[in-house]
Amino acid sequence: MSYQVAVLAGDGIGPEVMAEARKVLAQVEKRFELQIGYQDYDVGGVAIDNHGCPLPEATLKGCEAADAILFGSVGGPKWENLPPNDQPERGALLPLRGHFELFCNLRPAKLHAGLEHMSPLRADISSRGFDVLCVRELTGGIYFGKPKGRQGEGEAEEAFDTMRYSRAEVRRIAKIAFEAAQGRRKKVTSVDKANVLACSVLWREVVEDVAKDYPDVTLEHIYIDNATMQLLRRPDEFDVMLCSNLFGDIISDEIAMLTGSMGLLSSASQNSKGFGLYEPAGGSAPDIAGLGIANPVAQILSAALMLRHSFKEEEAAAAIERAVSKALSEGYLTGELLAAEQRADAKRTSEMGDFIAQAI
Amino acid sequence: MSYQVAVLAGDGIGPEVMAEARKVLAQVEKRFELQIGYQDYDVGGVAIDNHGCPLPEATLKGCEAADAILFGSVGGPKWENLPPNDQPERGALLPLRGHFELFCNLRPAKLHAGLEHMSPLRADISSRGFDVLCVRELTGGIYFGKPKGRQGEGEAEEAFDTMRYSRAEVRRIAKIAFEAAQGRRKKVTSVDKANVLACSVLWREVVEDVAKDYPDVTLEHIYIDNATMQLLRRPDEFDVMLCSNLFGDIISDEIAMLTGSMGLLSSASQNSKGFGLYEPAGGSAPDIAGLGIANPVAQILSAALMLRHSFKEEEAAAAIERAVSKALSEGYLTGELLAAEQRADAKRTSEMGDFIAQAI
Ligand SMILES: CC(C)[C@H](C(=O)O)[C@@H](O)C(=O)O
Ligand SMILES: CC(C)[C@H](C(=O)O)[C@@H](O)C(=O)O
Repeated sequence: MSYQVAVLAGDGIGPEVMAEARKVLAQVEKRFELQIGYQDYDVGGVAIDNHGCPLPEATLKGCEAADAILFGSVGGPKWENLPPNDQPERGALLPLRGHFELFCNLRPAKLHAGLEHMSPLRADISSRGFDVLCVRELTGGIYFGKPKGRQGEGEAEEAFDTMRYSRAEVRRIAKIAFEAAQGRRKKVTSVDKANVLACSVLWREVVEDVAKDYPDVTLEHIYIDNATMQLLRRPDEFDVMLCSNLFGDIISDEIAMLTGSMGLLSSASQNSKGFGLYEPAGGSAPDIAGLGIANPVAQILSAALMLRHSFKEEEAAAAIERAVSKALSEGYLTGELLAAEQRADAKRTSEMGDFIAQAI
Repeated sequence: MSYQVAVLAGDGIGPEVMAEARKVLAQVEKRFELQIGYQDYDVGGVAIDNHGCPLPEATLKGCEAADAILFGSVGGPKWENLPPNDQPERGALLPLRGHFELFCNLRPAKLHAGLEHMSPLRADISSRGFDVLCVRELTGGIYFGKPKGRQGEGEAEEAFDTMRYSRAEVRRIAKIAFEAAQGRRKKVTSVDKANVLACSVLWREVVEDVAKDYPDVTLEHIYIDNATMQLLRRPDEFDVMLCSNLFGDIISDEIAMLTGSMGLLSSASQNSKGFGLYEPAGGSAPDIAGLGIANPVAQILSAALMLRHSFKEEEAAAAIERAVSKALSEGYLTGELLAAEQRADAKRTSEMGDFIAQAI
């Protein structure tokens, strides 16, 4: 089989961790007899510097010609004071999501055995572990709803945003959550604010309706404010969390932080045709860029998600995940996952990539 | 001085903890020579049962005639399956906030010395303590913005909500945050989603503008998703958090849970004339209602907030707060704040009230 990947490494640690993902993919190609072609494109801050905008036409065309997008990370202090629409993160990610209708965002967050001490949670809570999959709607809600803008003058000037969801939009993302739950612990927690938002009332109705087709899956509803709280007390009781765009933004970041190891988390954003964008959950970490100490695991795992979801190469994806587990369980770790007194044993970015590639 | 208070005890533990607040207020009246008149009104589930709606006309009229509202808590399983608009919490609180234009919600959350173990945070994080004041805008944004509703049919049926803020609305709540910060650690963190929301861009502009009048206060901006994360890692670095209605709902609950002792937290909701609604942060806890074990501290502290903010009786307010601190520091605690092996020492609801009243 042969695939084309648009590689958008971006800024900060993006290029370094992407190099390790490519190293691992090269090994996967050999072992599983796949052919993967790569084309690199500028995105984010580097694209602003080279072409004047965070998502140049050539990058978008390149993504259109590819079977999937492997995304690094974007942003940094240099571009922080640009107007919101022109900033690297917003100006690249939102148009990509919109253009390819990447409505489904999967953000798994698991507390790895042996890394419980990284979690900011109290020892007796983190020791129970947790494994949550956030299924976030990514092309609707208040992110893209119209009208959005300003009107009026002086102190009466108003800004407005519209949160908007159709039954069809809720239904397609809800189905994905229930299907995912069937392959997991068979529980969906739908996050909303149905005591305030008309969108959430519709959301609840549709989710209840979809649930009827999955009698083996338990459904519960929780308000966003309460969800933020309960995740702190009993994260182990959540399995799949089904969220609208804005609430998914908040919940997925909260559970990522609860693992305490953002460098291990990746995410998949897909459309209904299997096309997707795969990226690490952490940011561009400009403070450690170029030092060769960034954790490449999240980027490597995003390559595994690409193999699984866009290329249906389950075996190859699982092989990468096994190799990563082997590295972690053998204590092969980058510095940020080690206590101060163990930092001397920290592996460098490229050592992590080498180990994982060899373990394939 | 003489004041009129509308007492809305509500459901669940509401009436029991309210009785203790009244006990403490009676002592305050004697000690500080105040005259406080009380009128009780039904609200929430009990109002639905007795009058068919969660906020009867008589209750609203009674509140209008009073100088402040002392609110207990509302809701319970019995009324959970009513349509959203008719439910106790939503159907009572939102109209009260709207009717009296209670635009300013103050929700302090402090990790009390000696109660660090209650926090769900890791010991090395909670041991640093924290003391955060959430200043939440309470009558604008997506809670009250128009249009809100539904249109279309079948799978194309859509629901929509409007987030809306004027410069004047942002300015008045921002001022309150900066003034509060001047009396605290002189830092305001404004929470928004300016990389996505037009409302947040306006919010940021106005907050920057207001900041110019408070040169002694440091201002920083943080995205809501990042705020949810940073609170878990470094809660001690936040002082005043300035939030829109929806983001404040989320942040105030997250910081409340981070203290691990919701029974100690109260909140004040005020309008521009000093009229206000004072309530505990926790819910109606129907599971323990009537057992005489609920923690009355949050309700007692909400009476202190009433004295301070609506009646300008600072000395009386401070006396209540000192009495509460005395109880806590002497280990005079209700059961939920004690480890299992110390539960035998747990104080009952009325014992807490007695102790605090006597300490006035
Ligand atoms: C950069 C920003 C627009 C984006 C979002 O809010 O979706 C980011 O926070 C994310 O979660 O991918
Ligand atoms: C009951 C509900 C409408 C309310 C809100 O969302 O404001 C509650 O969660 C609160 O925070 O007081």
